[in-house]
Amino acid sequence: MNSTDRPVYVAVCGGGDAADRECELAEAAGSELARAGAILVCGGLGGVMQAAVRGADTEGGITIGLLPGSSRADAAEGLTVALPTGLGEGRNLLVVRSVDVVIAIGGEFGTLSEIALALKVGVPVIGLDTWELAKRGEPVNAFPTAATAEDAVQQALDAARRRRDRD
Amino acid sequence: MNSTDRPVYVAVCGGGDAADRECELAEAAGSELARAGAILVCGGLGGVMQAAVRGADTEGGITIGLLPGSSRADAAEGLTVALPTGLGEGRNLLVVRSVDVVIAIGGEFGTLSEIALALKVGVPVIGLDTWELAKRGEPVNAFPTAATAEDAVQQALDAARRRRDRD
Amino acid sequence: MNSTDRPVYVAVCGGGDAADRECELAEAAGSELARAGAILVCGGLGGVMQAAVRGADTEGGITIGLLPGSSRADAAEGLTVALPTGLGEGRNLLVVRSVDVVIAIGGEFGTLSEIALALKVGVPVIGLDTWELAKRGEPVNAFPTAATAEDAVQQALDAARRRRDRD
Amino acid sequence: MNSTDRPVYVAVCGGGDAADRECELAEAAGSELARAGAILVCGGLGGVMQAAVRGADTEGGITIGLLPGSSRADAAEGLTVALPTGLGEGRNLLVVRSVDVVIAIGGEFGTLSEIALALKVGVPVIGLDTWELAKRGEPVNAFPTAATAEDAVQQALDAARRRRDRD
Repeated sequence: MNSTDRPVYVAVCGGGDAADRECELAEAAGSELARAGAILVCGGLGGVMQAAVRGADTEGGITIGLLPGSSRADAAEGLTVALPTGLGEGRNLLVVRSVDVVIAIGGEFGTLSEIALALKVGVPVIGLDTWELAKRGEPVNAFPTAATAEDAVQQALDAARRRRDRD
Repeated sequence: MNSTDRPVYVAVCGGGDAADRECELAEAAGSELARAGAILVCGGLGGVMQAAVRGADTEGGITIGLLPGSSRADAAEGLTVALPTGLGEGRNLLVVRSVDVVIAIGGEFGTLSEIALALKVGVPVIGLDTWELAKRGEPVNAFPTAATAEDAVQQALDAARRRRDRD
Repeated sequence: MNSTDRPVYVAVCGGGDAADRECELAEAAGSELARAGAILVCGGLGGVMQAAVRGADTEGGITIGLLPGSSRADAAEGLTVALPTGLGEGRNLLVVRSVDVVIAIGGEFGTLSEIALALKVGVPVIGLDTWELAKRGEPVNAFPTAATAEDAVQQALDAARRRRDRD
Repeated sequence: MNSTDRPVYVAVCGGGDAADRECELAEAAGSELARAGAILVCGGLGGVMQAAVRGADTEGGITIGLLPGSSRADAAEGLTVALPTGLGEGRNLLVVRSVDVVIAIGGEFGTLSEIALALKVGVPVIGLDTWELAKRGEPVNAFPTAATAEDAVQQALDAARRRRDRD
């Protein structure tokens, strides 16, 4: 696959049970990613994942759900492709590994694990109203943050492009 | 996702380094699956995998490659979606878990592992010129076989439909 | 760890629900491995796994069970170390990857997957009354077989030693 | 296995490249865990992992290393059992899943992923000079912290006991 014309893969990570504001951010990010021609990867369940898929679906984007269980029964509505992994929380690493960049929106410990795994394996992360890190009382700015969904998508696409140019 | 209108997911498994005859079977199976509206999942590399993707791509079908490594660099040409898993041979179980039915074409030990894992987790297998099993000199007919690619695809779609009706 | 004085790791694979004869072979193999100072790795459940652990335990050997689920509740009795993996059948690859050599005794599709994965990743396999392979009606002798538990252990230790010398 | 007499499994997580102070804490924790009869599980490499193994080994404790790669060559010295997993960073979830409680010492993004995965799957975490979490500028006290290695081990054993009583 020629690296210059292949699509960018972006994960949208966040809680399966999420606040309205987080879901609105996710839906807007999903729409924006679809308009940019990006392939959206997510954990395939509810909350932020479902909202991102809904946003992308409205704009005709391709969406992939990597499900933790062994059945497609719980998959978010509107996914282009729903893949049961049977890996439980192990699918979090899979979501991270399969993309060029991660957008983390709000979220609980699962999302924190995706942020940490992405940083560990060298996949860029853009934060949107999500976890903040510190050590001994001092903030650790491990990844850039965005103020809006549009800003997050723009930063994500830029990071993916920089990563591709480097490879 | 409503189970009656969602697409059928079919894995085509086989060697990354395969004989011409096996690649011809895989290409024909890929085309037939695309015409039937099935989503084709494979290990995303060369040989049988590349041939199946080529066949499906010609007919406008959706194809998913679950790659063993951490990069999209080795992905088969023409894949709709190429997902690096970083799981090594662990991606074989993922291929099996993510589909409704497996078509095994020729193949070496990797394909044998996919046949065995599918039978273990209850995903139907259709064999096409592939491994045969025995115990103490007696054949064990663990899965049905097909004589042609068209026959294999028909048996696979039937098995997927029976499985869905049962669920 | 110095490769010359570290212990040999041997997996004993077989059915969780196994015939008496298979369990007797497994128990004898477990005892023999313990006497040779090998560390026994298995899937940590019943049948052949429990029998191998019992045999090793009698001789004071170290035994490791890699469990498919997320709890130690189903672990075989007498295991030195019981590790829940939460990987389901994914733990089969883990069993194979973690050892120097595999002894396969009888078994069903899970054992067949372990044989296939071992052969795929280059871990030697010794068969004891287990699966036989063929293609187009011709036997494929993919791994050596043994006639007794003692013979299987001897062949396994030899294969592990040859592998170590090569590394 | 009877839950009342089986040993407690404790993971010690931390950087493979760690500050002296962190290694001292890890070594002290390893010794204390061994004296309490706990089985120590870790990622099996250098830094905090090697230090914890050294501490436990001095006191005759059992130590398990779950290695990210496919070879025992990089294993920490003194491990009772070194298991290559071939899962890369996927072994972090395995470390967490296989224990009753996690002690996190210092660490970088890999350790953060282990903290997050443990909290996600419900395995208690005790922090020792490690990551701090916040959201919107407000600290999130997701897990208790300890002031000394002895305190961390005591809290870990208490948490494991409470968990067992509940099961």
